[in-house]
Amino acid sequence: MSDIDIARSAHYEHIKNVAEKIDIPQKAVMEYGDYKGKVSYDYLRSVSDRPDGKVVLVTSINPTPAGEGKTTTTVGLGDGLNRIGKKAAICLREPSLGPVFGVKGGAAGGGHAQVVPMEDINLHFTGDFHAITSAHNLLAAMIDNHIHHGNELGFDLRRVAWRRVIDMNDRALRDVTIGLGGVANGFVREGGFDITVASEVMAIFCLATDLEDLTRRLGKIVVGYTRDKQAITAGELEAPGPMSVLLRDALMPNIVQTLENNPAFIHGGPFANIAHGCNSVMATKAAAKLADYTVTEAGFGADLGAEKFFDIKCRKAGIRPNAAVVVATARALKMHGGVAKDDLSKENVEALKSGCANLARHVQNVKKFGLPLVVAINRFPTDTDAELQAIQAYAKNELGVDAVICTHFGDGGAGAEELANKVVNLVEGGTDQFAALYPADQGLWEKTRTIVREIYGANDIIADKKVRDRFKELEEEGYGHFPICMAKTANSFSTDPNLKGAPTNFDVPIREVRLSAGAEFVVVICGAVMTMPGLPSKPAANEMYVDDEGRIQNLS
Amino acid sequence: MSDIDIARSAHYEHIKNVAEKIDIPQKAVMEYGDYKGKVSYDYLRSVSDRPDGKVVLVTSINPTPAGEGKTTTTVGLGDGLNRIGKKAAICLREPSLGPVFGVKGGAAGGGHAQVVPMEDINLHFTGDFHAITSAHNLLAAMIDNHIHHGNELGFDLRRVAWRRVIDMNDRALRDVTIGLGGVANGFVREGGFDITVASEVMAIFCLATDLEDLTRRLGKIVVGYTRDKQAITAGELEAPGPMSVLLRDALMPNIVQTLENNPAFIHGGPFANIAHGCNSVMATKAAAKLADYTVTEAGFGADLGAEKFFDIKCRKAGIRPNAAVVVATARALKMHGGVAKDDLSKENVEALKSGCANLARHVQNVKKFGLPLVVAINRFPTDTDAELQAIQAYAKNELGVDAVICTHFGDGGAGAEELANKVVNLVEGGTDQFAALYPADQGLWEKTRTIVREIYGANDIIADKKVRDRFKELEEEGYGHFPICMAKTANSFSTDPNLKGAPTNFDVPIREVRLSAGAEFVVVICGAVMTMPGLPSKPAANEMYVDDEGRIQNLS
Repeated sequence: MSDIDIARSAHYEHIKNVAEKIDIPQKAVMEYGDYKGKVSYDYLRSVSDRPDGKVVLVTSINPTPAGEGKTTTTVGLGDGLNRIGKKAAICLREPSLGPVFGVKGGAAGGGHAQVVPMEDINLHFTGDFHAITSAHNLLAAMIDNHIHHGNELGFDLRRVAWRRVIDMNDRALRDVTIGLGGVANGFVREGGFDITVASEVMAIFCLATDLEDLTRRLGKIVVGYTRDKQAITAGELEAPGPMSVLLRDALMPNIVQTLENNPAFIHGGPFANIAHGCNSVMATKAAAKLADYTVTEAGFGADLGAEKFFDIKCRKAGIRPNAAVVVATARALKMHGGVAKDDLSKENVEALKSGCANLARHVQNVKKFGLPLVVAINRFPTDTDAELQAIQAYAKNELGVDAVICTHFGDGGAGAEELANKVVNLVEGGTDQFAALYPADQGLWEKTRTIVREIYGANDIIADKKVRDRFKELEEEGYGHFPICMAKTANSFSTDPNLKGAPTNFDVPIREVRLSAGAEFVVVICGAVMTMPGLPSKPAANEMYVDDEGRIQNLS
Repeated sequence: MSDIDIARSAHYEHIKNVAEKIDIPQKAVMEYGDYKGKVSYDYLRSVSDRPDGKVVLVTSINPTPAGEGKTTTTVGLGDGLNRIGKKAAICLREPSLGPVFGVKGGAAGGGHAQVVPMEDINLHFTGDFHAITSAHNLLAAMIDNHIHHGNELGFDLRRVAWRRVIDMNDRALRDVTIGLGGVANGFVREGGFDITVASEVMAIFCLATDLEDLTRRLGKIVVGYTRDKQAITAGELEAPGPMSVLLRDALMPNIVQTLENNPAFIHGGPFANIAHGCNSVMATKAAAKLADYTVTEAGFGADLGAEKFFDIKCRKAGIRPNAAVVVATARALKMHGGVAKDDLSKENVEALKSGCANLARHVQNVKKFGLPLVVAINRFPTDTDAELQAIQAYAKNELGVDAVICTHFGDGGAGAEELANKVVNLVEGGTDQFAALYPADQGLWEKTRTIVREIYGANDIIADKKVRDRFKELEEEGYGHFPICMAKTANSFSTDPNLKGAPTNFDVPIREVRLSAGAEFVVVICGAVMTMPGLPSKPAANEMYVDDEGRIQNLS
């Protein structure tokens, strides 16, 4: 059965009943149809003094084309925890609309580890991303309007730093010239569009602790510079007010359900490269107040996703994680051991053992944040017993951690019960001592060096004078206390996506440094960063339609 | 009290209870929070065999800066009908998001004749316009993607006819160059953005009778031409399927309530110039099946709005209107009689009588469609008794119709009870003999000439050879049976906005003819048509914010 067939044959509970499982009263849920809801601000405020439940991060080895299954493991673990009697909720990112029509398909889990209604989640959902697109583009319109009507703030037309966004894969909009057509249309200048998830508004949305904090952060966005390079902010344009008006409802966390009718918060979805790649602070904090166990994930592998989850999201929002799960698959480890994608179905224990070096470094990294952890082996049908045993033996003997075989994709929560039990043991062991990797008051250059040495295993960072100067400038401008948001390939610890396993003896070249003043981090870019995807020659869109019974077909 | 203060102090019924007033079962309403809903396709199909209730169009004299109050009269009449014991529902257009941040403010009525929740209706509402924006821009992305990947259909880059849309007032996007930045970003070409309400997808959305009809129409959109001028359609790009996927939920009619808790359908909102300016056929047909009286409005004055409502919407969708209300104000009639805006508060019966010529022509026009009608005088505080009596006397003696004074703005439905009684009398009189103005099989040139002579009072249409050739081409290409969608100034019967009253002895110059193959009409453009507004020097946005209690402030 396809994912969508499984999703359709499942029994759905009304969202108010799902919410009641974590004691959210019916009137605190604003419904969007029977199966989607938002949890009201009033209710969230009313529980804000409660102690937090336990928070578990699901992260993974460096992703490969073989697939790891981080989202399905998050869903499976959530269902598994509920099955063994824990009141658990999961927190995921909202999928981006554009890529659904390209290659990627949706992002609501798969098999028997899904969140539903998957069509809604993958399409407009509760409109959050549309609200973010609108807020972002209102600011853009206000900038060009300001310039058109006299440019009192003195924008240098060559230094407008705020692009526009659209939630669509549209490569033709990456670089555009705007303001053509004569005086009535404003001033001609270069511009461009990013996909909505790459918007700084998205990052701000996901880090804001409430509406007030959202508005405060929006005001700090640097939208451009004067001719003498003085920053101009969104606040100076009086944009934070109307942007917050557009985002007011969106900032309430969305609640849906897993196939096993357990609560799932799906809220926010920033890029995992130029942003921090985690669902909203609003959702994670809500879940932590309401559930005994909150299971959440972070984008890409642990080198990027987990590091940013800990050093940016948890540190800034005061979230205290208690344990981590590192997802791996035999197939992906074989790729890290040098096996080509076409040969993955053949048993190859030696290559797998060699690829375990990738797993090892991620496990050691997570330990550096003070967290107990377990490896989840997301089982595929082609995996052999010898391969699975080899991973378990490696984890136990070389890393001192357990590796649990999970079959949630085929079996739902039952396939993750052993993992759930292991997670509960870790958490109840009380050994967690979460700490960020670097202190906030370290210099920006030093923080970046700490990340690449401690997490990536690199020798050092390298950068030309212009980039090094920018680090200094940002410190002089008062941004030295911001955490670092690394942007590099997800496929390797290094900046070369082809260097699998656990590369050593390399440097990390820094190409560019960008300020996200509202998100309150400094983006350090180490490679090409694509902020507007394109569609493939045969887009997934071509096959999609609504059938005679009103069902969406070929959305995957 | 401001509109928003009145709206906030009102008692709101849960939307399921509102829907029950016209016998919609609770389970047929998909909730979006407590006060907004969509009526399910299944339920609409289940009532499709019922006979239609009565349909009343609210239209007006040519709009002036003095304001007419067509929307408030629609709301007031709906409430008035309910007060006198009729089961009535109103149908309005959804407001566009962009202009809310400019000058205009929202469009949910005013005073004690409003639809609520006004903040939601004026902002994201149920996401319909975002869905339309997404569907429109998916098609745009698929076009440039097709060209990028080989251009099998042979688009002439200079003749791509599909622009992009955004629901924001952003003049800098009117004319842009896209595809810059190198090979990976596609081919450089000219492009541009319209505001979402100007999208042909919006017009199609509003004319589609069901999802299947929507998909069929989307497939017919002409998106560009080959070098030898052969049309290329959205269907050839396999775009209608995924576009319908994006629009599936949006096409269900939205239901909200008036301040007096009566049902209001608010669905779709096409431009009243390059499109037909009426709410969706889905909503009007739903209301007609469910209510005894459906009160709806059309954009601009009766010369544009009512003509298109009758000749495009009613004719194509098989809606049979039974009566019309022509809204006028003493102030607006004085402006048509030559009074300057600053002098409107002074009594001036002579100017008013002279301005009644404008009213007269609209009344005569509506009669040409075979409908009984009443004039609604939307009373303003500065109106004098002499002025109001003059309008009533003119209507009675010169036009043979009643003119009823309405005070719904200040008094709600009670202020429109007399109007409601009059409408019921007209309808129950059974004198309606609705007929379109011109037969479908008349030539496109002839149809246009019929409209300008019969409705505008012009001598003839004039156009240069290029435009006349285009009329012929469209007939040769098989579009001769389409109705005409006139695009001209709303402020005058003529194409000169300064010609108030009832001008005579003028021609209507045609500047351009555009095909809307999916909407199934031919747009005849007689003047400048603005499809992307800009923001003013001090946008309304600047004053908006969310207050400490989560309320949106300064949205009007």
